[in-house]
Amino acid sequence: MGGDRGPAAVVAGIQRSAKKNPDIAFILHGPKDKLEPLIRRRKLEDRVKINDVDGVVTMDAKPSVVMRQGKGTSMWEAVESVRKGDAAVAVSCGNTGALMGLSMIRLRKLPGINRPAIACLWPSENPSGFNVMLDVGADVRADATDLLQYALMGASYARNGLGIERPRVGLLNVGTEEYKGRPELKEAADLVEAAASDGGYAYIGFIEGGDIPKSKVDVIVTDGFTGNVALKTGEGTARLIRSFLGDAFRATPLSRIAALLALTSLRRLQKRIDPRRVNGGVFLGLNGTIVKSHGSADSTGVSAAIKLAFRLAQSGFNERLAARVASHSARGQNASQGAGEESEQSE
Amino acid sequence: MGGDRGPAAVVAGIQRSAKKNPDIAFILHGPKDKLEPLIRRRKLEDRVKINDVDGVVTMDAKPSVVMRQGKGTSMWEAVESVRKGDAAVAVSCGNTGALMGLSMIRLRKLPGINRPAIACLWPSENPSGFNVMLDVGADVRADATDLLQYALMGASYARNGLGIERPRVGLLNVGTEEYKGRPELKEAADLVEAAASDGGYAYIGFIEGGDIPKSKVDVIVTDGFTGNVALKTGEGTARLIRSFLGDAFRATPLSRIAALLALTSLRRLQKRIDPRRVNGGVFLGLNGTIVKSHGSADSTGVSAAIKLAFRLAQSGFNERLAARVASHSARGQNASQGAGEESEQSE
Repeated sequence: MGGDRGPAAVVAGIQRSAKKNPDIAFILHGPKDKLEPLIRRRKLEDRVKINDVDGVVTMDAKPSVVMRQGKGTSMWEAVESVRKGDAAVAVSCGNTGALMGLSMIRLRKLPGINRPAIACLWPSENPSGFNVMLDVGADVRADATDLLQYALMGASYARNGLGIERPRVGLLNVGTEEYKGRPELKEAADLVEAAASDGGYAYIGFIEGGDIPKSKVDVIVTDGFTGNVALKTGEGTARLIRSFLGDAFRATPLSRIAALLALTSLRRLQKRIDPRRVNGGVFLGLNGTIVKSHGSADSTGVSAAIKLAFRLAQSGFNERLAARVASHSARGQNASQGAGEESEQSE
Repeated sequence: MGGDRGPAAVVAGIQRSAKKNPDIAFILHGPKDKLEPLIRRRKLEDRVKINDVDGVVTMDAKPSVVMRQGKGTSMWEAVESVRKGDAAVAVSCGNTGALMGLSMIRLRKLPGINRPAIACLWPSENPSGFNVMLDVGADVRADATDLLQYALMGASYARNGLGIERPRVGLLNVGTEEYKGRPELKEAADLVEAAASDGGYAYIGFIEGGDIPKSKVDVIVTDGFTGNVALKTGEGTARLIRSFLGDAFRATPLSRIAALLALTSLRRLQKRIDPRRVNGGVFLGLNGTIVKSHGSADSTGVSAAIKLAFRLAQSGFNERLAARVASHSARGQNASQGAGEESEQSE
């Protein structure tokens, strides 16, 4: 019910996904009198069950307030459906902070996780077409231990979500030299490097903003403030270039003819850089999977988020991630008891 | 002498600028035996004076070491030429941290400035074609008072460099809601808002990464860590899209024909998003103007940095910036003596 475009965009997205994938069933949380006509108009009665609930978390609601008073809202119910096992995964276009807050109090954090994170997919030069970046906005702070946990979770996501057996993990910094950046990043570098074998990833060191879409890295680890700014800056740049591209092809009569001839090529490009097609931030570190769609997502965006949610639910990814984190925590305890005996850490 | 491409790229850039603008004279710092042949080959003997100096600051040198032992390097001499008044402005493709360090110890900070900042131009939807962002890498930390000073300096830069009489200043955050983000940002928001009339700017509140290239803001204020990541992320995204654009037009024989016809349009776009054309970070807050070019700048990039340096030197911008900061500091002291009597602060 939240989101900038309201339930109509969500239902339109459901229709797209329902058409493409006969294996998805939907539970839609919100007031029946508003949702039923939308569902009927799109002939989705067989695919969608409505969970009649009145309350709505508005986009500008304070997360702390929603966490106290959010019961009886569609967002609460969506998270609750995952907790109870009615849904394998929940998708929301609503208020990010409130969704994370509700997810934390209802689903609870995985054992061994201090701060959950939001991971996004980033169009890249890698064969899979994507890199993973986290945290992109769950928490504005992250200390060295949090960054280590992000590395473990991000590697797990890349392995199960993108099929990369041994993901390469980089720490986002202002330079690749070891002495650069904030103190917590240097500490994190040591921790992330030491846990590489446990975590089933390769640590490639510090990377810069320009490396985010490159093929030298699969998982970009950063705090939620920096990650959020980077994500939105990348999207903003892509939007700006699309608009400039339009200007360039509208500039003269000849360029308009060229645009007609180049239409297929332009569409191919458009598809590759369309932020709607990589829509869906995944909440990592909870007992259950939540996919946060852009608030402004249209049907294409919502459908992309649903596709991602479906894939993650099918791969049993959250159980694997939990196992990986638990295994590392256990080893970490052994290691600190054993005062740094590295020999036991091989896989 | 620093920079990834060495002095050849610098001299090639000088040639481009010398051709376009007969009013620039150059002092080139470095070993005469290496530089003289380059200058002669490009017939620049009349325009360029060589300052024969042997030492070079390497790209991976530690700034703290260069600050202690940098005397006798080309970088030291370039900064020194500004201090002595031999040059109106210095341009360097070298090691950013070392250049900032040397600039701070030789030129000294302006009265009232705690941390100098590096400001960059960002292609935008504004009529001028650019927004200003700072800090993009002078310092990884910035407290609320630093951010206020960045706002004052950035507004001054936008006024003198881009001709915007009353620049609109925004604080980069993870959301536009007032309760979001880090504590120092909330404090900074109050300071920046209170100083708007003194600083000759309008404060528009928090902005997000996606707003950086938009027309709603002229000056984007942030700490050097976040700003550097955002800058490099934007550049990386632009590079990725350019590469995708190439792929799209190479995909099929028909698309290759379309590309030929669209060549002018594509060149127009290329020019607008080419990071080399906005090359040049300006060091703000020092007694003298230093322009930092990209380390990897080619002749086009170097020439763009020279053009920017020339424009800033001609506008007497640094003196105006110093006056604006001094005036605000004086008022700030009056205001704290007068215990917040706002009535005296009108312009």
